[in-house]
Amino acid sequence: MDGLRETLGNLVDHRVTQRFIVFVLFLNALTLGLDTAPSVMGEYGELIDNINTIIPIIFVIEVGSRFIARGSKFFKESWNVFDVVIISISFLPSGSAFSALRALRILRVLHVISLVPRMRHVVAAMIRSLPQIGSILALLIIISYISAVIVTHLYGEDYPELFGSIGRSMLTLFQLMTLEGWAAEVVRPVMETHPYSVFLFIPYMLMTAFAILNLFTAVLVDSMQILQQNYTYERTEQQTAKILTDEMVDVKADLLALTQEIRKLRGEIEDRSKGAD
Amino acid sequence: MDGLRETLGNLVDHRVTQRFIVFVLFLNALTLGLDTAPSVMGEYGELIDNINTIIPIIFVIEVGSRFIARGSKFFKESWNVFDVVIISISFLPSGSAFSALRALRILRVLHVISLVPRMRHVVAAMIRSLPQIGSILALLIIISYISAVIVTHLYGEDYPELFGSIGRSMLTLFQLMTLEGWAAEVVRPVMETHPYSVFLFIPYMLMTAFAILNLFTAVLVDSMQILQQNYTYERTEQQTAKILTDEMVDVKADLLALTQEIRKLRGEIEDRSKGAD
Amino acid sequence: MDGLRETLGNLVDHRVTQRFIVFVLFLNALTLGLDTAPSVMGEYGELIDNINTIIPIIFVIEVGSRFIARGSKFFKESWNVFDVVIISISFLPSGSAFSALRALRILRVLHVISLVPRMRHVVAAMIRSLPQIGSILALLIIISYISAVIVTHLYGEDYPELFGSIGRSMLTLFQLMTLEGWAAEVVRPVMETHPYSVFLFIPYMLMTAFAILNLFTAVLVDSMQILQQNYTYERTEQQTAKILTDEMVDVKADLLALTQEIRKLRGEIEDRSKGAD
Amino acid sequence: MDGLRETLGNLVDHRVTQRFIVFVLFLNALTLGLDTAPSVMGEYGELIDNINTIIPIIFVIEVGSRFIARGSKFFKESWNVFDVVIISISFLPSGSAFSALRALRILRVLHVISLVPRMRHVVAAMIRSLPQIGSILALLIIISYISAVIVTHLYGEDYPELFGSIGRSMLTLFQLMTLEGWAAEVVRPVMETHPYSVFLFIPYMLMTAFAILNLFTAVLVDSMQILQQNYTYERTEQQTAKILTDEMVDVKADLLALTQEIRKLRGEIEDRSKGAD
Repeated sequence: MDGLRETLGNLVDHRVTQRFIVFVLFLNALTLGLDTAPSVMGEYGELIDNINTIIPIIFVIEVGSRFIARGSKFFKESWNVFDVVIISISFLPSGSAFSALRALRILRVLHVISLVPRMRHVVAAMIRSLPQIGSILALLIIISYISAVIVTHLYGEDYPELFGSIGRSMLTLFQLMTLEGWAAEVVRPVMETHPYSVFLFIPYMLMTAFAILNLFTAVLVDSMQILQQNYTYERTEQQTAKILTDEMVDVKADLLALTQEIRKLRGEIEDRSKGAD
Repeated sequence: MDGLRETLGNLVDHRVTQRFIVFVLFLNALTLGLDTAPSVMGEYGELIDNINTIIPIIFVIEVGSRFIARGSKFFKESWNVFDVVIISISFLPSGSAFSALRALRILRVLHVISLVPRMRHVVAAMIRSLPQIGSILALLIIISYISAVIVTHLYGEDYPELFGSIGRSMLTLFQLMTLEGWAAEVVRPVMETHPYSVFLFIPYMLMTAFAILNLFTAVLVDSMQILQQNYTYERTEQQTAKILTDEMVDVKADLLALTQEIRKLRGEIEDRSKGAD
Repeated sequence: MDGLRETLGNLVDHRVTQRFIVFVLFLNALTLGLDTAPSVMGEYGELIDNINTIIPIIFVIEVGSRFIARGSKFFKESWNVFDVVIISISFLPSGSAFSALRALRILRVLHVISLVPRMRHVVAAMIRSLPQIGSILALLIIISYISAVIVTHLYGEDYPELFGSIGRSMLTLFQLMTLEGWAAEVVRPVMETHPYSVFLFIPYMLMTAFAILNLFTAVLVDSMQILQQNYTYERTEQQTAKILTDEMVDVKADLLALTQEIRKLRGEIEDRSKGAD
Repeated sequence: MDGLRETLGNLVDHRVTQRFIVFVLFLNALTLGLDTAPSVMGEYGELIDNINTIIPIIFVIEVGSRFIARGSKFFKESWNVFDVVIISISFLPSGSAFSALRALRILRVLHVISLVPRMRHVVAAMIRSLPQIGSILALLIIISYISAVIVTHLYGEDYPELFGSIGRSMLTLFQLMTLEGWAAEVVRPVMETHPYSVFLFIPYMLMTAFAILNLFTAVLVDSMQILQQNYTYERTEQQTAKILTDEMVDVKADLLALTQEIRKLRGEIEDRSKGAD
């Protein structure tokens, strides 16, 4: 049984298998894309539908084999959980009236991230950098929420489209944060009735820009820190230490030899003295 | 009295108390948000108003207890001053006709920043990086003011909406600085009557973009500097120094032993010589 | 033959030749620019056409000479291949009805990049930094394609202009990624019929912004890494090692002298002892 | 004469004088700003005009005194040249019909940059970082010019507003580079008649964005390099070297003492031997 498992594990992790799965993924990405083009579907609709039905089965076999091979350890690796979730979406009643569910089938293409090591590496690195920005994101959300409550109170009645509810205000404030259309669509119109609103909007934009700058810095400094630890520490430290130690071993050996030389000398002098007595 | 103070201090700084206050803050953020939704207020208005009346009292008790516990040291910590200010705002006549004052009650939610250590840390770090950008900000303001005076003179008459006064010109120049709608809303319209204005606007945009790039660099380099000092200096320096010192202590001990060995030898030779005399 | 080749090689790589070619390039940039101005072409059309016919011949002679001088090694340097390609474009039937081909003649001005060492350096550095961002770019393309399929399914029927096909959806999503007009042109209109679309668009914008931030960090960290290796390693490491070694050589010499001193001493004592015997 | 010069030099560089000049500058910035407000000028026009006439004389006295104090060295410092130029502008016929010249008087406020050391420092740092970005800027200009010639040929006839001449094309391409209104104002309209133009505009935007990213990196890496040299080199290197040298001096002193000890021993043995002879 264990031998069979290992064989299955080797088979599913084999380079050729992996490349085949990546190829199947790209084929599926293409067919799911063509699925949106009515002209193509009119002619090759049946073929494309068949491919879109068969391919998820290949993924089920692949991930299923890996599950059998790994056993209970399977769910310990988060990438496997990720694969199971995105492939499960393929089996939602895609033929149903809900075009939303039909649309979600394309999510299975994300499987490529867990298959290609470099992709997995990049995504893992991006997820690792999230905690560093967590506090600043939380701060941005708090500032936006507080600002949303204030602007809803102040301008909600006069500009219901922009600030009619907390939700709308947060969307408009997010728009200000991205600086997109802030002048023509938000600040200039509101200033016509509330000229002092500019002293609320500009500080908000400056504050969020500054927070985003700090968010950026946090991600960057974190990346640098890892770099620094690896390079400065590993290289400089260990190599200096090595050179130092090598040299010191020489000096100590010389000193030891010297000490022995002197001891020998002393021993000889003593011997001679005894002989002289 | 001091024992009582200490007990009160421990109580107010206790983990459970802190979490309860954070929970109350989030509850208040919610009720102050709901306060903007007329449909919700129609049904639960009285309940929400009561909550919004009771909660600030909890904050007064919390910050008051901390004041009693800390005594005169209370106002030395700037976070306490911050808490007193934002909570004081809650007691402005919120029921009055001024919806602006009513809106400011939500500011008390900022109390979460002084309560959660990581928030406090992030905000402190952001404030610390302000002096580094102070000179560049001052430069940006000077450049913007000078440019505002120039464009008000040059285009104020023809485009009163954009450049009618120093204030309007500064807003329009800030818009150019953010690059938001610079082409369709500012440069292209003005170019119709003043075709050479482009040689004033584009350099202004490039100059401010370059200043902002330098502002960014200043914040980043400052963060790196702290990193560098901590890592390069602390680790590399201190560990190299430690290894070096350890090794040198050994070498010196060896040398000392050697010297003593030679002194002993000399002593013996002298003794013997004396004996021989 | 080889002597002739070398002379030709020296001639074509000579400073004066290089500067003359750069001058010819700028002249050609000017004449090809003037070619687009009907008023100038009406008066000086013949002169400009003549210049535009003669100049590519100069480039052919220059690159041809380099080919003869280098021989088979010519195509090993990628800049030469680049020159051959962009100059070949000059000889496409530019007088034909296809104004597109006529327009491409200006590409020969790119020759300046291979001529000016600093330009070559900058472009080479930019190309070198591409692999570092390859994985993140691939991820961005995958995310955009998947999102394009989803939004084409969901909003394609109602907003054919924005999301009518995979191509249009990808363009609109690229627009969202650049944050350009996201509110007024995409999110707000779509929200009128699909209010929940905001929970798809905002996360998409945040995700791509985060990916671009990581892309930026990757380029920057890569540049820093090279810096770090050069500076920290080369300087710190090598200089520390040098100082260390110099000092150690002194110490070892001292120790050797000491050992010899002791050996001499021992020899003399032995001699004396022998003499005493 | 030299004593008088020195006295004048000390007087003009005195803290109080400097602060007075900065105060006068801010006063002048205010009065030149008020000069744009017709309502204020109607009431206090004469006073403001008088101030605007007197203040430049103060600057002439200040800079003139510095010129007398420094003598021939005056023009060697570039800040002095800068001061002379911007103050000269004040004496252009500002009362004339040319409102443009009248507008330029505000440039004298830039004098504050040469007066305040921190301002001078920031501007000097920004100018220092220009050479690092020179090559990338040149590349951006070349790419933009080439692209401008191509798009003028291709779309100039159909979209004269956007691409009617090299100048207009460069402005539109600069707009694309800043990503401002690229979709609604440029790419989408042009795509209606030239659907493949998207494969020219998007690569142009990506290429320039990548160039700007590299420009940013160049400025940042340059700042870091200076940091690294100062910190890593100065601190790590010099301190390690210092600790090393201090320790080595000890070891060498010990070795010297040891050698002398042994020489003394040898001398005594020799003496004794002679005595024994």
